[in-house]
Amino acid sequence: MENQNNIFRSENKISSLVIKRLPKYYRILTEQQAKGELKISSSQLARLSGTTASQIRQDFSLFGGFGQQGFGYNIEFLLGEIKRIIGVDKQHKAILVGVGNLGKALIHHMNFENSGFSLIGAFDNSEDIIDKTVGEIKIRSIDEVKSFCRINKVHTAIICIPSDVAETVVEELYESNVYNFWNFSDYNIKMNYPDTNVETVKLRDSLMCLCYLATNE
Amino acid sequence: MENQNNIFRSENKISSLVIKRLPKYYRILTEQQAKGELKISSSQLARLSGTTASQIRQDFSLFGGFGQQGFGYNIEFLLGEIKRIIGVDKQHKAILVGVGNLGKALIHHMNFENSGFSLIGAFDNSEDIIDKTVGEIKIRSIDEVKSFCRINKVHTAIICIPSDVAETVVEELYESNVYNFWNFSDYNIKMNYPDTNVETVKLRDSLMCLCYLATNE
Repeated sequence: MENQNNIFRSENKISSLVIKRLPKYYRILTEQQAKGELKISSSQLARLSGTTASQIRQDFSLFGGFGQQGFGYNIEFLLGEIKRIIGVDKQHKAILVGVGNLGKALIHHMNFENSGFSLIGAFDNSEDIIDKTVGEIKIRSIDEVKSFCRINKVHTAIICIPSDVAETVVEELYESNVYNFWNFSDYNIKMNYPDTNVETVKLRDSLMCLCYLATNE
Repeated sequence: MENQNNIFRSENKISSLVIKRLPKYYRILTEQQAKGELKISSSQLARLSGTTASQIRQDFSLFGGFGQQGFGYNIEFLLGEIKRIIGVDKQHKAILVGVGNLGKALIHHMNFENSGFSLIGAFDNSEDIIDKTVGEIKIRSIDEVKSFCRINKVHTAIICIPSDVAETVVEELYESNVYNFWNFSDYNIKMNYPDTNVETVKLRDSLMCLCYLATNE
């Protein structure tokens, strides 16, 4: 299996669409496991994830299969494999910039460890919050962010600040060797720094999609 | 143009992938307009939105074109058309359930009016926040949510509560004729109520995608 993983990785065949489906499979499998289930068929998993059994089999075949035809998949094994592929056990060090309500919500409610990250710092420019503690994180001045990232070898940042300030902050972070961004701002990081990894959460785009559905369906 | 819109709507040809791209076009066009631009070519828009010029032309042809070959698109006209298709001018009444940090972040920072919604109420079960005001919204007890939705003819709810309580609340809302959901919980509304419109924001899925990129690229 390790071998097959290596083959898949070195050929880099996995498409971003498959990547986007893996966390969903992971979530559903975790829920099934919590209900005491040990196995799941591709058709069950397909129904729960809103896709087709053949899509599931195709996705899983990319990393070597994971199941025996007719016997279903072993949930624990599958979870372990998906975890390994995503790299959830890696605990990449991350910082958060912008401790407003959204930043606070993420610090309090995101289980970073379960998603492969360890949140080790948070930064803001407001005197009202600097040196205070949110969750278990001490809030530092944004002036310290460059040195903090360099000293602690942080390569991941969560951007919870408005787009107009994001431009300057991202430039500083990039210069400090931060190249993974979880971006909640409208600032287009990938366009300005094509060699970065960016996952953008566009809340307004999502709300507008709901508006379309509410209006037209 | 009106006619073409009607044709497109009655045939209901528009795929969910196109719907998902429209808010992105809208965002980019708004940015260009703010910079003083009046026109944009399909290749410029393609570059800014990370797609191809032929994709742009294909998407826009679904609703009657919007441009003259070689002259580019008139930004203001295009924005107006996308607005009309999404239904941003409709101002659907919405409520928010769960005024924790995430709920507060949405109340403070989302421009609901610009996305086609008018937030008219927010609900929580904590005595600490009931009757307080967040932004300009008075927080009400969750016990009032059913009557509030019925009296005010609210059909849209924003779900910012954990999955285990979401199940009960969504059932109550559905019985009160709420059928549009902006869902931040892991509870699968669409599976349990297939006749609803649901846009789900899966923050953990997004973070796990970043983890994959951080680990593998």
